[in-house]
Amino acid sequence: MPETDEDMEACISQCLGCYRNCLQTASQHCLEAGGKHIEPEHFRLMMACAEICRTTAHTMLIGVAIHGRVCAACADMCRACAESCTGLHGMAECEEACRRCAQACEKMA
Amino acid sequence: MPETDEDMEACISQCLGCYRNCLQTASQHCLEAGGKHIEPEHFRLMMACAEICRTTAHTMLIGVAIHGRVCAACADMCRACAESCTGLHGMAECEEACRRCAQACEKMA
Amino acid sequence: MPETDEDMEACISQCLGCYRNCLQTASQHCLEAGGKHIEPEHFRLMMACAEICRTTAHTMLIGVAIHGRVCAACADMCRACAESCTGLHGMAECEEACRRCAQACEKMA
Amino acid sequence: MPETDEDMEACISQCLGCYRNCLQTASQHCLEAGGKHIEPEHFRLMMACAEICRTTAHTMLIGVAIHGRVCAACADMCRACAESCTGLHGMAECEEACRRCAQACEKMA
Repeated sequence: MPETDEDMEACISQCLGCYRNCLQTASQHCLEAGGKHIEPEHFRLMMACAEICRTTAHTMLIGVAIHGRVCAACADMCRACAESCTGLHGMAECEEACRRCAQACEKMA
Repeated sequence: MPETDEDMEACISQCLGCYRNCLQTASQHCLEAGGKHIEPEHFRLMMACAEICRTTAHTMLIGVAIHGRVCAACADMCRACAESCTGLHGMAECEEACRRCAQACEKMA
Repeated sequence: MPETDEDMEACISQCLGCYRNCLQTASQHCLEAGGKHIEPEHFRLMMACAEICRTTAHTMLIGVAIHGRVCAACADMCRACAESCTGLHGMAECEEACRRCAQACEKMA
Repeated sequence: MPETDEDMEACISQCLGCYRNCLQTASQHCLEAGGKHIEPEHFRLMMACAEICRTTAHTMLIGVAIHGRVCAACADMCRACAESCTGLHGMAECEEACRRCAQACEKMA
């Protein structure tokens, strides 16, 4: 089934939402919480997920024809970030945003 | 052969160099030149290539373990941008930066 | 009157909305329209406005104490971009997004 | 004395160098070191400084006429980040990059 403009607009919104959630949660919740929340690999995933979500939205906003592999890379990072959030206090919303974004990106990949 | 820290630092430098080249050339050469230089799909590729190069460098600077698919997506975009630059006046340096960046990113993918 | 968290969340939303509007309009409307829409200084303003809006949102999402001068720089760029959009066909929504973002950023500056 | 193209190229290089230094040091040194290195306001400054340096370079690469207030905002953030790095183990190179970038940006403001 071919992707539609509506799918793309929805994916852009998911990416910007996940970006906003990951960056704000990392900087304002994780840094304050300490402990497992700032374990290096977890925190790096939060930062890297925010970044690739932002760029995936950017790539679709530009409207370049070959956005598929960027979307695929974003879906991967979002899944890894969601797993890293699982079970950590106060991260349920972030985990959910990552899972929704991964699904939307897979549809565009 | 496993990637080394030296390979990664070199790849970060290639990505930032290609980002700088693509963005500056698009904005300061292509917009002035007009004609084929601002054909929408060419210009979009220049913008999208600048963006994914910047983010690929960012992902490696963060040092997150799973950077491979971001590097692969970057290599793809750089190859497409290089092809789009081929034969256009004043774009040889940009084309060359894209090809070198694609090679460095493939090594990290 | 001190700024509130609510003001900041609203400003982040305005910045991300203006970013999305400027980038998509530049790449998908201006490049297709040609003429005055791709006059170099207009197009550069569209790109630069998208970028500073994105970064101003980013700075507030991080939650760093000294975000004021970034917000002030963003308000300036948005006003200049709005003026550059005035009277150009199909740019009314973008112009309006820039004006609303400038107002929100001034409140945070 | 008017700014020259050479000054601007030098400033772009300082901004990209400071961006690279701040992001890599935050993610690969501070997160591992813990303690004062991940005190929230210090870490936020490192992230925010990386971001505004990146965007200030971007604004000059675009070549938009009104880059001055972005450069001024960058100089401010770099000075605050340099102060925050002072006396912290392993941060001398980052502090120095921030101070050099602040100087270069003031010249362009």
